[in-house]
Amino acid sequence: MENFDFYSPTEFVFGKDRENETGKYVKKHGGSKVLIHYGGGSVKRSGLLERVQASLDQEKIEYVLLGGVKPNPRSGLVYEGIEICKTEKVDFILAVGGGSTIDSAKAIAAGTIYDGDFWDFYMGKRIEKALPVGTVLTIAAAGSEGSPDSVITKEEGMFKRGASGDAIRPKFSILNPALTQTLPPFQTAAGITDIMAHLYERYLTNTKEVEVTDRLIEGLLLTMIHEGPRVIADPDNYEARANIMWAGMMAHNNSCGVGRSQDWNSHNIEHELSALYDCAHGAGLAVTLPAVFTYVMDHDVMRFAKAAVRVWGCEMDFDHPEVTAKEGIERLRRFFISIGMPKNFEELGAKEEDIPVLVKALCRGDGREGTISGFVTLNEDDCTKIYKMMI
Amino acid sequence: MENFDFYSPTEFVFGKDRENETGKYVKKHGGSKVLIHYGGGSVKRSGLLERVQASLDQEKIEYVLLGGVKPNPRSGLVYEGIEICKTEKVDFILAVGGGSTIDSAKAIAAGTIYDGDFWDFYMGKRIEKALPVGTVLTIAAAGSEGSPDSVITKEEGMFKRGASGDAIRPKFSILNPALTQTLPPFQTAAGITDIMAHLYERYLTNTKEVEVTDRLIEGLLLTMIHEGPRVIADPDNYEARANIMWAGMMAHNNSCGVGRSQDWNSHNIEHELSALYDCAHGAGLAVTLPAVFTYVMDHDVMRFAKAAVRVWGCEMDFDHPEVTAKEGIERLRRFFISIGMPKNFEELGAKEEDIPVLVKALCRGDGREGTISGFVTLNEDDCTKIYKMMI
Repeated sequence: MENFDFYSPTEFVFGKDRENETGKYVKKHGGSKVLIHYGGGSVKRSGLLERVQASLDQEKIEYVLLGGVKPNPRSGLVYEGIEICKTEKVDFILAVGGGSTIDSAKAIAAGTIYDGDFWDFYMGKRIEKALPVGTVLTIAAAGSEGSPDSVITKEEGMFKRGASGDAIRPKFSILNPALTQTLPPFQTAAGITDIMAHLYERYLTNTKEVEVTDRLIEGLLLTMIHEGPRVIADPDNYEARANIMWAGMMAHNNSCGVGRSQDWNSHNIEHELSALYDCAHGAGLAVTLPAVFTYVMDHDVMRFAKAAVRVWGCEMDFDHPEVTAKEGIERLRRFFISIGMPKNFEELGAKEEDIPVLVKALCRGDGREGTISGFVTLNEDDCTKIYKMMI
Repeated sequence: MENFDFYSPTEFVFGKDRENETGKYVKKHGGSKVLIHYGGGSVKRSGLLERVQASLDQEKIEYVLLGGVKPNPRSGLVYEGIEICKTEKVDFILAVGGGSTIDSAKAIAAGTIYDGDFWDFYMGKRIEKALPVGTVLTIAAAGSEGSPDSVITKEEGMFKRGASGDAIRPKFSILNPALTQTLPPFQTAAGITDIMAHLYERYLTNTKEVEVTDRLIEGLLLTMIHEGPRVIADPDNYEARANIMWAGMMAHNNSCGVGRSQDWNSHNIEHELSALYDCAHGAGLAVTLPAVFTYVMDHDVMRFAKAAVRVWGCEMDFDHPEVTAKEGIERLRRFFISIGMPKNFEELGAKEEDIPVLVKALCRGDGREGTISGFVTLNEDDCTKIYKMMI
């Protein structure tokens, strides 16, 4: 196991009706003037925004509102948020929504107290200071509610890039599984896919003998395989929603990824798809993961065989481990299809002729010099082949 | 899943040689005058204490020393520590040792800034304030390095009781697996047993459909079953030590126990054994767990069958689930014996004729009124039968 630091100080407030305590937690973490950041109309229609506002009112906490966050959140709204926070002297950012809203809120939190352009952080500068962030989560997916990460798309060039730093870990996150019951099935499934991708990105490691994190990841994947189909069949299943919601947080706060090298090539390959086509990140991952895994499988057949046996219940073929490994990838692919995810470029709305554009943005975009690296290092030729496997 | 709050803000500093950074982390968390609390001579002989002192010296942090913590730490030394901290105006408690040392340090941290008798906290008063605590861990076992709990034995009456509160969660914990390589095999095995007990106490729940935490617990148990025998066979196996060390923390910081009722009857039943005979807590648990589980198995046969199949690799007997359930308990019992743990009262140094004394202390001791409760409620008669099963 490699040396590591692990620090996850977020206060998780989990369960039914907990959003009514938002004001209490904002106050506890020092907020007196809040930016409530949210996406579209669903948090208004559901009455959630109103309940959160009432909870702030109760604690006599002032707030300003900034809606309009879109999936694959854009830099434009971040700049707007930073301006509002500076003008209004906001001291706490509250995200009410999913990963996109939380990521946008984190960018605003870091950018507000930074003299330069907030995009510097997405070009590799570590975030050391930020306004405190709190979240009221509405979808189990990105894990941003418990992570030090944020992903934003820069509108000039449509580059999708990530930034990181403990300063943007939420001070508290309110997780009410009931809030996810009204999600459309497609979004629920895209969230499930994203969570499973976070687990696989950590599973694909070159670090040897990391049994504890292997087992934790496998346990969370098994949870998703059990609970995913249950919520697709019955969106109101609170217990299944609750298990998925905690799994989504645990998948990405990194307690199951410490001390081991991780992959993240699949995320990078997918980011170009959702940046260009504005598709759901989870949907893009459903198409990306099986292709990437098939392409890199030979790098460590036994690791894929292990996932196949332990997670997918395949029989180990001791004479031909690669058959088992492949069967595990095939079961993953079929699982994504079974919960309603797209299976190829066509279903995703991507186009074969764009592959050179995707590869260029991926391998030559902001700060990259011809390759991406993770479980294996991939060059432009590799990435071209991988995108072609998705057609 | 039940509603819950989860807050684990401890900074974990994991890996080789990390104890040399102790001073940096004490400083980061505001310590300027430290009580270094430790146990016997082993931290001196190994040179660990010297390295920790050098690290504090480097940061120009003052300190006073208080050694002498014994397994099953006593109230007497806690009172002594509180006096020293008050006199010396200590503002940070640093535990260098295992669970006993950390628990004693936590008691001192809470007692120093409390006007009453620190034992109040061990009689049920929640700990709301304490001096900051940091740890340098030397054994994977109690999980106290990442928990809000402390267990102390009161010398008058030899009552062993626990206290709890987020205020005593360590600010940082330094986990260097190499420090555990010099442990005698018996202590290593007792630590493994304690970790597995923490997992089982959470696994035995009356909450339905908690797949995510079931799977996390199972994953950690599988890790222990894989790594336990490896460190017993080869004490210098750093990788196995590292996996056990992280599993030990994860087993008890409660990320795998949230939102579900838990048991803790086995811990309470064992506490009377280690209080009376001063045996290793883990050794007591090795004798206690199989007896308790056999006694309560009928309360939920399928839960024990699940553990048998998923954790112990038993074939499910669909016609007779109780056969599978029993086989899982039997494999657990044999596992403890295989790593060198005692199997009965005799090997533990306990005496049949003391059972009435044990039962009285357990069911009628400080604050109890004839029963203990958890997965099932047990009265004096039940507890007598359970102790008798251990003979």
